[in-house]
Amino acid sequence: MKITPISGFPEYLPAERIVEQHFLDVIRETFELHGFPSIETRAVEPVERLLGKGGDADKEIYGVSRLAGDDAGSRDAELGLHFDLTVPFARYVLENAGHLAFPFRRHQIQKVWRGERPQEGRYREFTQADIDVVDVGELAPHFEAEIPLVMAEVFSKLPIGQLVIQVNNRKIPEGFYLGIGVTDVIGTLRIVDKLDKIGPAKVADLLVEAGLTREQADQCLALAAIRTEDLSFVDRVRALGVSHPTLDEGLEALSRVIGTGMANAPGALVADLRIARGLDYYTGTVYETQLVGHESWGSFCSGGRYDSLASDGRTTYPGVGISIGVSRLLGLLLGQKLLTASRSTPACVLVAVTDEDSRATSTRVATELRARGIPCEVAPKPAKFGKQIRYAERRGMPYVWFPGAGEPADGATDQVKDIRSGEQVDADATTWQPPADDLHPQILRAES
Amino acid sequence: MKITPISGFPEYLPAERIVEQHFLDVIRETFELHGFPSIETRAVEPVERLLGKGGDADKEIYGVSRLAGDDAGSRDAELGLHFDLTVPFARYVLENAGHLAFPFRRHQIQKVWRGERPQEGRYREFTQADIDVVDVGELAPHFEAEIPLVMAEVFSKLPIGQLVIQVNNRKIPEGFYLGIGVTDVIGTLRIVDKLDKIGPAKVADLLVEAGLTREQADQCLALAAIRTEDLSFVDRVRALGVSHPTLDEGLEALSRVIGTGMANAPGALVADLRIARGLDYYTGTVYETQLVGHESWGSFCSGGRYDSLASDGRTTYPGVGISIGVSRLLGLLLGQKLLTASRSTPACVLVAVTDEDSRATSTRVATELRARGIPCEVAPKPAKFGKQIRYAERRGMPYVWFPGAGEPADGATDQVKDIRSGEQVDADATTWQPPADDLHPQILRAES
Repeated sequence: MKITPISGFPEYLPAERIVEQHFLDVIRETFELHGFPSIETRAVEPVERLLGKGGDADKEIYGVSRLAGDDAGSRDAELGLHFDLTVPFARYVLENAGHLAFPFRRHQIQKVWRGERPQEGRYREFTQADIDVVDVGELAPHFEAEIPLVMAEVFSKLPIGQLVIQVNNRKIPEGFYLGIGVTDVIGTLRIVDKLDKIGPAKVADLLVEAGLTREQADQCLALAAIRTEDLSFVDRVRALGVSHPTLDEGLEALSRVIGTGMANAPGALVADLRIARGLDYYTGTVYETQLVGHESWGSFCSGGRYDSLASDGRTTYPGVGISIGVSRLLGLLLGQKLLTASRSTPACVLVAVTDEDSRATSTRVATELRARGIPCEVAPKPAKFGKQIRYAERRGMPYVWFPGAGEPADGATDQVKDIRSGEQVDADATTWQPPADDLHPQILRAES
Repeated sequence: MKITPISGFPEYLPAERIVEQHFLDVIRETFELHGFPSIETRAVEPVERLLGKGGDADKEIYGVSRLAGDDAGSRDAELGLHFDLTVPFARYVLENAGHLAFPFRRHQIQKVWRGERPQEGRYREFTQADIDVVDVGELAPHFEAEIPLVMAEVFSKLPIGQLVIQVNNRKIPEGFYLGIGVTDVIGTLRIVDKLDKIGPAKVADLLVEAGLTREQADQCLALAAIRTEDLSFVDRVRALGVSHPTLDEGLEALSRVIGTGMANAPGALVADLRIARGLDYYTGTVYETQLVGHESWGSFCSGGRYDSLASDGRTTYPGVGISIGVSRLLGLLLGQKLLTASRSTPACVLVAVTDEDSRATSTRVATELRARGIPCEVAPKPAKFGKQIRYAERRGMPYVWFPGAGEPADGATDQVKDIRSGEQVDADATTWQPPADDLHPQILRAES
C-alpha cells in the first residue's frame, strides 16, 4: 500500500517537533503564570451545535461516524470534529457551570479540524492555543486589557521577532458610521475589512456601490487609517469632526486597553482602527496581530470580547478571549527555515559502550546523569568509538561520555568529550554538569 | 439545545485536569531524560491502513468525512481516526525513513479514538503515551530491557503506589508447547490468556476441548503459574522437564531482561510466564502491568517486541515498544477519588485590588512575581478584602497579596497572607518566594 502525505494534515520530523514543543511550552507556561488553568474538551461535538455558530462554518465540518455502522436506531446525536476551541468552551461552561468558579479563566491548547477543500492548500488539522475569561451576567472591562497582555508576554518569549497586537473596539466604527449617517454598520465593516486585500481605492468604490456618498466613504477610510501606539488616536478621531455616544464609549474603552498596554508592555499593543474581525459575535474590543517584517502573512492571533459567549436562556455568559494559530505560525517559520532546533533529540549526552558485557556500566552512568536531570542515551552498539561519536553527531547531541577512560590519579574514572570542539576531559557522572545552553535543545533563529 | 455529556468522551474539571497534566508532564520528562524525542502524527489515516492490522479492529474505527460532502470525484482516500499510536508510527517510519536516524527512538502522547458501542461503558476518546525503538533489519536485544525500565521510572515518579511490570517472552510458551507436542501455539496461547478471567480449571477444560491431553493441559498451566522476581524462573521451567531450542532462546532472552531489571530497578520487573498479549504481531518479549492492590483493574501499560513493526517490501523494521493507557488509569484513580489536586488553578497568589484606580499597582506586583516564575492572578474586583480572600480560597490559592499594606519602617510596602494559617507578613514582590510545595499545585493521594 502506497504511502503519501495527506494534504492539509502536516506532520513534523523530530527536530521540527522540538521547535513546536518549545512554542507550546512557552505558551502554556505563560498562560499558567497568569493563572489560566488548562482544560481540554473532547474532539467531537454534536453537529447541530457546530452548525449553530454563524457564517459558513457548515462547509468546513468533518463528520464522524462508526464505520461498523450499526448506529441505526442509536439515540446518539450526529457528531463532528470541532473546528475551533470557542464553541466547545462555550458548551463546557454551560455543562459545568455549577462546578466552575466565576469569573472563570481557562487556557486550552488543542488540535482543531476543518474540512477545507485540499486544493486551497489550507490546514485541515491544526493546533490552536486559546485563553478566555468568562463571567456571569457582566464581565469587568479590565479583562479586555489583560488578555492581549498575556499574549504580548508569550510573543516576547518566543524567537519570532516583534509581533504587534492591533486593537480596536467595534463601537468606534459603529458609532462613527452612525455619526456620519451610515446605518448598515455590519455591511460597511465587512467592506472596510477588505482594506488589506484590495486597498483603499477599491474599498471606497465598494462603499459607494453599497449606497454611501463619496464623502462618507472617504470618512470611513480616514477612520480606518488611524493607527497609534499611544492615546493620540482619540484626538485624530475627534479631528474628523464626528460625534456619537457609541463612538465616545468605544474611544474610552480602547483608551483603557491601550493605556494599560503602554504601562505594562510599551509597544506591544497599538490602536488600529481598521481592525474589524469578520465574526459577528464580537461586540467590543477586537484583536489581531502582525509579525513585523511579515505583515503579508496576516494575523496569527485574534480574538475579542463577546457579550454572549454562551447562554442557557436564563443566564448569559459574556467573555473575552484570544487565540494563537500555532500551526500556521510554525508552518511558515519552519517552512521558510527561519527556525531550527539545535538537535533532533532531547538527549544531551551519548554514553558510549565499550563492549556489550560492559553495557551495565554505561547504563549506570546514564542513570546517574538522569537523576540530575541530564537527558542521555546509552549507545545502541559497542561499535568503534568513532562510529559512536558519529551516532551522536548525526542527532546533534553535544557530548559523548566514555566510561572508564578517566585518569584514576584525578579521582575520575570517566571522560566526556564535547564533540563540537573535540575537547575531552575527566568527568564524574555524579557531579558533571553541561552548560545550561546544552542541557536541552536550543531553538535557533536564522539571521534574516 | 440541551447539553448532555457524550458517553465515552470524558472531560475533566480544571482540578482533575491538573492531575492529568502532572501525569503527562512526568511521562514526557522521563521519556526525554531517556532520549526519546516526541513525534505527533495526524489524527487520521486512510481507512485501508487502519483495517490492515489484524483482529476485529474494523469494528472500532471512526470514519471521518466532510459534511459538505462534495468529495465526490475526489481522489482522497477514505479517512478514519487512528485507534492506537502504533499503526500511525509504523506509517510515519516508512514515510520518513530517509530523514530518520536508525535505531530510531520516539515517544508519542496523543489521543486515540475507538468507535466502541457506548453501552459497554468504554472510552471512545482517550490518551495513550507510547515509546518505541525501531531499527532497520535487526534490533539489538538490549532494547527489550531498556524499554520497560523507562516505564518503571515513570511509575516510580507517579503518585500511584507500586506498579509491577510483568514480562514474558513468547518463545517460552511457544518452545514449551512444541516441546510437549502441542503444535497449535497461537490457539493454545489464546486459551491460556483467559486465565485471569476464567481461572485454571476452565482453561484446562478448554485446552482439552481443543485437543490437548489432560497431561499437556496441566503442563501448560504449570508453566503459566511461574512468576519470579529473579532468575529462578529458569530452574522452575527446567524442573518441568521440557526441552526445545525455542524454549532455550526464550529463557535466555527473558533472563537478560529480568537480569537488567534486577540491576537497575529491583522489584520493578517480574518474570510472569502467563503473559501472552493477544496481538499477533508480538514475536518475543511481551509486557503487561499490574497496579499492586488494584490487580483487578487489569493492565494499564502493555507492549512487546515485533520483528516487523513496518515493512515496505524491501526493508523490514523490527521494533520494541510499550504504551500507557493514561486515560483509563486516570479515570479509575480520579473516579475513586484516590488522587486530587491541591488547587484548581496554577495561580499561587491572588494580588488583591484596593480600588479600581490602583489596579495598575496590583498589576505591577503581579508582573514582579511572574518575572520570578510565581504564577499569580490580579483580583477581578476591588471588593472587600474578605471577599477577595474567599475568591482565592474557593480556587485553593494559598496566598493573597495586599499592595500598600506593609510597614514602611520595615522597608516593605506590601504584605502577603497565607490564607490557610491566617499568618500575614511584610513582603517585597521583588524578593518574596513561596515554599517550593506551594509554587505549583500539588497532587494529593488519598490514604487508602
